[in-house]
Amino acid sequence: MERDAVMIAGGAGTGKTTLALEYLVNGITRFGEPGIYVTFEQLPDQIYRDAESFGWNLHKLEEENKLRIVCTSANLLLGSDGGELLDQTIKEIQPRRMVIDSLNHLEMYVPHGDLRQETYRILMHAKTRGISPLVIWEAQQSSDRSFTVTEGGMSFLVDCIVLLKFVEIESSMKKALVIMKMRGSDHDKRLREYEITPHGFNVSAPFTHYEGLMTGTPHRSITEEAANSWALAFGKNKQKHS
Amino acid sequence: MERDAVMIAGGAGTGKTTLALEYLVNGITRFGEPGIYVTFEQLPDQIYRDAESFGWNLHKLEEENKLRIVCTSANLLLGSDGGELLDQTIKEIQPRRMVIDSLNHLEMYVPHGDLRQETYRILMHAKTRGISPLVIWEAQQSSDRSFTVTEGGMSFLVDCIVLLKFVEIESSMKKALVIMKMRGSDHDKRLREYEITPHGFNVSAPFTHYEGLMTGTPHRSITEEAANSWALAFGKNKQKHS
Amino acid sequence: MERDAVMIAGGAGTGKTTLALEYLVNGITRFGEPGIYVTFEQLPDQIYRDAESFGWNLHKLEEENKLRIVCTSANLLLGSDGGELLDQTIKEIQPRRMVIDSLNHLEMYVPHGDLRQETYRILMHAKTRGISPLVIWEAQQSSDRSFTVTEGGMSFLVDCIVLLKFVEIESSMKKALVIMKMRGSDHDKRLREYEITPHGFNVSAPFTHYEGLMTGTPHRSITEEAANSWALAFGKNKQKHS
Amino acid sequence: MERDAVMIAGGAGTGKTTLALEYLVNGITRFGEPGIYVTFEQLPDQIYRDAESFGWNLHKLEEENKLRIVCTSANLLLGSDGGELLDQTIKEIQPRRMVIDSLNHLEMYVPHGDLRQETYRILMHAKTRGISPLVIWEAQQSSDRSFTVTEGGMSFLVDCIVLLKFVEIESSMKKALVIMKMRGSDHDKRLREYEITPHGFNVSAPFTHYEGLMTGTPHRSITEEAANSWALAFGKNKQKHS
Amino acid sequence: MERDAVMIAGGAGTGKTTLALEYLVNGITRFGEPGIYVTFEQLPDQIYRDAESFGWNLHKLEEENKLRIVCTSANLLLGSDGGELLDQTIKEIQPRRMVIDSLNHLEMYVPHGDLRQETYRILMHAKTRGISPLVIWEAQQSSDRSFTVTEGGMSFLVDCIVLLKFVEIESSMKKALVIMKMRGSDHDKRLREYEITPHGFNVSAPFTHYEGLMTGTPHRSITEEAANSWALAFGKNKQKHS
Amino acid sequence: MERDAVMIAGGAGTGKTTLALEYLVNGITRFGEPGIYVTFEQLPDQIYRDAESFGWNLHKLEEENKLRIVCTSANLLLGSDGGELLDQTIKEIQPRRMVIDSLNHLEMYVPHGDLRQETYRILMHAKTRGISPLVIWEAQQSSDRSFTVTEGGMSFLVDCIVLLKFVEIESSMKKALVIMKMRGSDHDKRLREYEITPHGFNVSAPFTHYEGLMTGTPHRSITEEAANSWALAFGKNKQKHS
Repeated sequence: MERDAVMIAGGAGTGKTTLALEYLVNGITRFGEPGIYVTFEQLPDQIYRDAESFGWNLHKLEEENKLRIVCTSANLLLGSDGGELLDQTIKEIQPRRMVIDSLNHLEMYVPHGDLRQETYRILMHAKTRGISPLVIWEAQQSSDRSFTVTEGGMSFLVDCIVLLKFVEIESSMKKALVIMKMRGSDHDKRLREYEITPHGFNVSAPFTHYEGLMTGTPHRSITEEAANSWALAFGKNKQKHS
Repeated sequence: MERDAVMIAGGAGTGKTTLALEYLVNGITRFGEPGIYVTFEQLPDQIYRDAESFGWNLHKLEEENKLRIVCTSANLLLGSDGGELLDQTIKEIQPRRMVIDSLNHLEMYVPHGDLRQETYRILMHAKTRGISPLVIWEAQQSSDRSFTVTEGGMSFLVDCIVLLKFVEIESSMKKALVIMKMRGSDHDKRLREYEITPHGFNVSAPFTHYEGLMTGTPHRSITEEAANSWALAFGKNKQKHS
Repeated sequence: MERDAVMIAGGAGTGKTTLALEYLVNGITRFGEPGIYVTFEQLPDQIYRDAESFGWNLHKLEEENKLRIVCTSANLLLGSDGGELLDQTIKEIQPRRMVIDSLNHLEMYVPHGDLRQETYRILMHAKTRGISPLVIWEAQQSSDRSFTVTEGGMSFLVDCIVLLKFVEIESSMKKALVIMKMRGSDHDKRLREYEITPHGFNVSAPFTHYEGLMTGTPHRSITEEAANSWALAFGKNKQKHS
Repeated sequence: MERDAVMIAGGAGTGKTTLALEYLVNGITRFGEPGIYVTFEQLPDQIYRDAESFGWNLHKLEEENKLRIVCTSANLLLGSDGGELLDQTIKEIQPRRMVIDSLNHLEMYVPHGDLRQETYRILMHAKTRGISPLVIWEAQQSSDRSFTVTEGGMSFLVDCIVLLKFVEIESSMKKALVIMKMRGSDHDKRLREYEITPHGFNVSAPFTHYEGLMTGTPHRSITEEAANSWALAFGKNKQKHS
Repeated sequence: MERDAVMIAGGAGTGKTTLALEYLVNGITRFGEPGIYVTFEQLPDQIYRDAESFGWNLHKLEEENKLRIVCTSANLLLGSDGGELLDQTIKEIQPRRMVIDSLNHLEMYVPHGDLRQETYRILMHAKTRGISPLVIWEAQQSSDRSFTVTEGGMSFLVDCIVLLKFVEIESSMKKALVIMKMRGSDHDKRLREYEITPHGFNVSAPFTHYEGLMTGTPHRSITEEAANSWALAFGKNKQKHS
Repeated sequence: MERDAVMIAGGAGTGKTTLALEYLVNGITRFGEPGIYVTFEQLPDQIYRDAESFGWNLHKLEEENKLRIVCTSANLLLGSDGGELLDQTIKEIQPRRMVIDSLNHLEMYVPHGDLRQETYRILMHAKTRGISPLVIWEAQQSSDRSFTVTEGGMSFLVDCIVLLKFVEIESSMKKALVIMKMRGSDHDKRLREYEITPHGFNVSAPFTHYEGLMTGTPHRSITEEAANSWALAFGKNKQKHS
């Protein structure tokens, strides 16, 4: 059975890589699903280091053949050898989950306008091998483009989109998460606070009574109850006095 | 009799393709109207896959000669053979509905400034054959261009424009739909919430008591009743106390 | 006696062409004033079609020599033959009204910075022949340029400017019309709602109690009465309690 | 004695030319001060026409040697002959007032960065001959540059700056005027409404209880009295209840 | 002892030159400190004229060897002769205060990226000779860059920064002044109104109860007292009623 | 044990250099940790001068071999000699803390897109020698990019990010500080006021009851208590009256 493709989109510093790592580590430790982390980063050491700060020993998971951090160039992955490169790893550990970090890096190496096609090819490569792909997209957090999660047509390729954002709430810098899309299900549309704790992502209760969360600087809304009672209270007063 | 041309405009991820597919599937299953889906997408498989997630078996409809997914290049459609290409399909299944996905793809292949003329040519090609054309336009969802549904002059070519948008309501990411134009009728101008359910589009009640829905981050408005009762209540108080 | 020059400015889809057509049709049917519609559109058929949807049979009016749809290139109109071209038509039907659709098209064909001069030449050509010219200008509806109806100096050439805009009111997409300029009269400055009905333009009551209509996403204002009564009510309370 | 230099700055359609004409006509008819109107406009006829609509017969004033409309190119005025050109006219009618319409036109003909120097030269040329110069500057009315009346350093050259703006008040498009600068006096800083009536400019009462007039889309402010009484009223209540 | 370097930053027309002149004139008349005004302006006459309107006779002060208006080109000041040029003047009148009008002019003559270094060189040249330098910077008053007083790194070079701004308060165009920086002291951070009177700068009371002064179009804030009493008042009511 | 890498990000004039200096001075005087200040500034004297105004004698600390101000070019640091240059200093004073002032300077000297890699190399160079690196980043304070602390991917390289901002509070220009990231700990997310006193940074209480602090022009929020009591108060009234 084909598995879902997920996209994590978010601004710099919102924890996309951490969420992606946790997705793989959870797969391994809780569901017995081996994983591949394909990165075009020039600094793979930092990934091991980041994982360590959450108590995730990636080296150990690699030695146990449950994980592979594939640090390659986008060029190599896109070339004819790219598939082989992954296929070799896929044969070795039989992964069920794969992270591509990130589409923005990939974009730099494909001819202009071909990112969708290449992304589709990679997603299908994974899906048809029984692997759930998760792709990372670093979106800009400017207020007037806050809903443009991805460039045109990218959202159509994935089954699920999780958006991460900074929001200022009660004079604090909090982080918000919202599912923008989940194919084939009536998903939760509420923006929720999350924290990156020493143990990884911790998603908490939905925000309530705020307007403009997507702008990053929301304000408290008048509750509907208050708005209604206002109208009724003074509507009654009006009749009493007349 | 000539049929109406419809435009679906909206940002990425708002479900334009799903709405267009449902338009064709409904035509076939409810009204016995065969349909063509003309796409310049390089990934037609994804369309079948997307349809499946809503329970629409496009392959089966194609086998029954009620549907054709025509996956062509914009170049081909625009060339002298393009008409023939469609005409062949039109002869085969006698369609009454046609989707063009999308004008943005088409735009890349026509000389600068010729999009309107080509769109007109295609729309007329369909209309004069008794086919209702529906064109898809991916609009940018930036706040300061939120009303510019299409580039100059495009809106004049179609009889009906449906705009799809993300809006943040009650700390949730909802979707809104509004009919911007419907030629020859006193159409509903209210912004309505819609959801993409496992069974397709589900349009629900109009939004009420919100201001700035078109910006994507609306806020609750003071109701007129409240505003009036306020004035009256204190107006009365004022007289009582003096 | 010289007649006034009118400019209709507005965003895409606000009905500029419909208003211009109605101006001519009304001239013919109500005031017995023949009219010319000069268009640089490449798709004149759409104009006949659009008019038909409002019940205006332009072909019939042309046959009765009360109307001419002059579909020319801007180049031709601007050249030395352009005047002759119009003059021939002017001789034939003795028009009192003329529409130029649109200045934006004209702008593409005149050397940079000459649009004002050419527009002036055309307006004077009409006025000195006893014809009221009406020019169409497609303005951008971005919030921060909402008052810049026209490029520099254009507004000075015309006697009257009507601006058309989309505005979101009570969670609906309505249309607003405002007279920005009317030379030699104390004109109505209120923004009014209008609708494009099956019978053409229908201008209704002015908006009241809104702020920011020109931004397209207005909000209800506190009424002056309410603001005053507030001050008075609590001012009174204050004294009562002390 | 040297006379003051005035700048009229404002967006398109705010009536800068009308105000400048009225300045000259008033000078002639009320104070017996002849005037020159120097325009770089290619359409001087429109100035006579515009004046006529206010009942000002410029041709007659010219015949009486009380006015000269000098329609020249900026090139000519800036060249060595330019001074002579004006000086000849100055000798003929001994003007006390002079309008330069406009600095924007002048700017196109001077080397980049020299506008200030040329403007200064022209202003001094007038002032040292006992003539009050008035220069017109067409400013852009975008919300985020609303206070930048002129380009850098221009405001320093003139003794008085009058800014004209469109403002939306009570769902109407009104016009506002504010004195940004008046050298050597404690001038009125209030924004005032003005209208262009069949008899010229009519400045009325200052706006009150509005915030954001300079953005063009102001909103009513809570009055200070209301704000204070609010605090007091509930402050009293608080004590009563405790 | 080394003296402090001051920067006056502000938009066009806010009175930077007037404040700088007053700084020198006050130094001379109240503290017996001679001053130099270094200007790259091509129109030094205007400076004398501007000063006269405030009752400051710069010519007389120059004759008394208490002031020098050094009108030079930025090129000359920056070259090897520049130091000499100033040093000659410094020897003659032994100044304690020096104004550089302006860094924006200077910026045009230094290689890109060298402005900081040249500014530093000039500031140190003055400081080490016991002269307090004051530099003028014309900042743009756009709302989204309102806090960017200077380009990167400039603020680090000076000991004190005074920012001048237009603000719309109570439907009037007022001017606001705020000290952005004062090295080594706990300075006043309040925005204060100032006026340019016939006698020079007049700084008055701080603004109170406004939000968004730095945007130029502030709005009245709810006072803290009101906000608190509101909560308390209704909090009490709530308990009473339950 | 490896030490944490810190980034100080903030607009011009927010005190980034002062905070970095205090970090080193505190390390020396309170924790006995020698420090290096690597600056690409062309004006190192200003650093000594700035420190003096806070009572920090950098020359003395250098003589005591507890501090080195390394004033180098970015080119030199990035070249093969760069490491040696630092290593020599590292050998001499055995530092535990190092400041890099600033990444913006560094960015000018590395090929486009290599800043991350070079920054990583420098950070690791320090960390692996037991030195805590602190890097300075001058961010733009425009409202719509207020959360984009750094360019893409930079935030991932550091363990802690401190953001400094100007905010207008109660009609005063205050400064705010917020920890955007602290790896491996549940850090304080509140925006706090800070002042630069004659003794250095002084961080005070968190802001409360403000919305939009990150925009720089916040407004007071309605307290939750008030919002709730409002609903309850009028909810009760409503039932009483009905």
